[in-house]
Amino acid sequence: MSSSDAVPGGGGGTEAATGRPPIREALVAAAFRLFLERGYEQTTVDDIVALAGVGRRSFFRYFPSKEDVVFPDHERCLADMTAFLARSAEDDEPVRRVCDAARMVLRMYAENPAFSVQRYRLTKQVPGLRAYELSVVWHYERALAAYLRGRFAARRDGILRADVVAAAVVAAHNNALRSWLRSDGQGDAGAAVDHALGHVQSVFGSAQVPPAGEQTEDVVVVVSRRGAPLWRVVQEIETTLGAR
Amino acid sequence: MSSSDAVPGGGGGTEAATGRPPIREALVAAAFRLFLERGYEQTTVDDIVALAGVGRRSFFRYFPSKEDVVFPDHERCLADMTAFLARSAEDDEPVRRVCDAARMVLRMYAENPAFSVQRYRLTKQVPGLRAYELSVVWHYERALAAYLRGRFAARRDGILRADVVAAAVVAAHNNALRSWLRSDGQGDAGAAVDHALGHVQSVFGSAQVPPAGEQTEDVVVVVSRRGAPLWRVVQEIETTLGAR
Repeated sequence: MSSSDAVPGGGGGTEAATGRPPIREALVAAAFRLFLERGYEQTTVDDIVALAGVGRRSFFRYFPSKEDVVFPDHERCLADMTAFLARSAEDDEPVRRVCDAARMVLRMYAENPAFSVQRYRLTKQVPGLRAYELSVVWHYERALAAYLRGRFAARRDGILRADVVAAAVVAAHNNALRSWLRSDGQGDAGAAVDHALGHVQSVFGSAQVPPAGEQTEDVVVVVSRRGAPLWRVVQEIETTLGAR
Repeated sequence: MSSSDAVPGGGGGTEAATGRPPIREALVAAAFRLFLERGYEQTTVDDIVALAGVGRRSFFRYFPSKEDVVFPDHERCLADMTAFLARSAEDDEPVRRVCDAARMVLRMYAENPAFSVQRYRLTKQVPGLRAYELSVVWHYERALAAYLRGRFAARRDGILRADVVAAAVVAAHNNALRSWLRSDGQGDAGAAVDHALGHVQSVFGSAQVPPAGEQTEDVVVVVSRRGAPLWRVVQEIETTLGAR
């Protein structure tokens, strides 16, 4: 894995291919080459712009600080996620919707496995970057929670449930993402995240809206105290079946 | 609310009363008085030690940095929480146990409402403190997850479930804690956190070990496809009831 593979967006590198300006791409590539060669703390913004062949002002046009060049796509991803949630329909099942929003983060990582794995190793080594990453994750979680708070507004404990579900979705997503990063980006990240998010959906998702493209599991659930006489339980089932 | 009320541990202030050295308490009190009067960024460690009437080395004996004086009790609380989880019994219901561990954080805040509310306001204003707090919360969450990973080791998706439950417990706890802090520490923080954690326990807690002191809700749940004939459903219920 050479450091030249590690430009976000992969092979292309031109604005047409990635939708991002080539100077920005060059700065990220130069920064990561230096971080890997010398270490993060030992690399200055001056070193980065010298290697990229641009001026200092170009760096700060794209990145407020050296930390931001480590996470070049999070701001765009957070904006995309917020826009995705804002254009939700009334009949979108809310937990499924935030799971789909979380998958946008996974896609950003999976777009360029080599870069993502390098960054993961760097972040583990540099406490300042770890703190930055926690703040990034917190912003994603708050975006999910804000959408869910709206959707659960009429529910008892709606705000509480929104916060809990958002945290659960982020934890499940990161559990799968980190396993994939620890395995050096081998294996199917998408399948791992789908499995993890499926776990959260099975716990919190409402059955009102069946998952698109899947067979409806037409199920009756009867809950009864053990003490209830059998005839009452049967009556309850008949009533439920009759209400189809 | 005078700033002299705002020493963690409340009225006492002596080592005998709080278990913490009086110089440490004096440094925290001086720091918060200055943070409130001048602002956090405008206060130096030199200002703090001058007001507390101690030398610079005394400050750094207790606190690695100015940020640490804002969260003087978190390290102790994290150590207490880790020890509490380490001395768990095999038959402790795991989700209940991590909820009890989370309550240790609440107790630390509720010990001194005036101080906690001041810190909450300060943390909202200073991005660096917000980042520090996220890292503190992350350490609590990892302590809970580490315990749950051990307890769920034999389960399918045990690590995933451990991470999700830990995140849900922290989110519920913080939802209640922040409501209480926003209300200036009015109301019963303990009851609010109990309610929030009860929500998580009802979602994730296993019914194997009934909550101590509560009546067992002896319940039968039958899940069946709608298409199943009624006699099959009744048979299922009879079998379940018979297996008491």
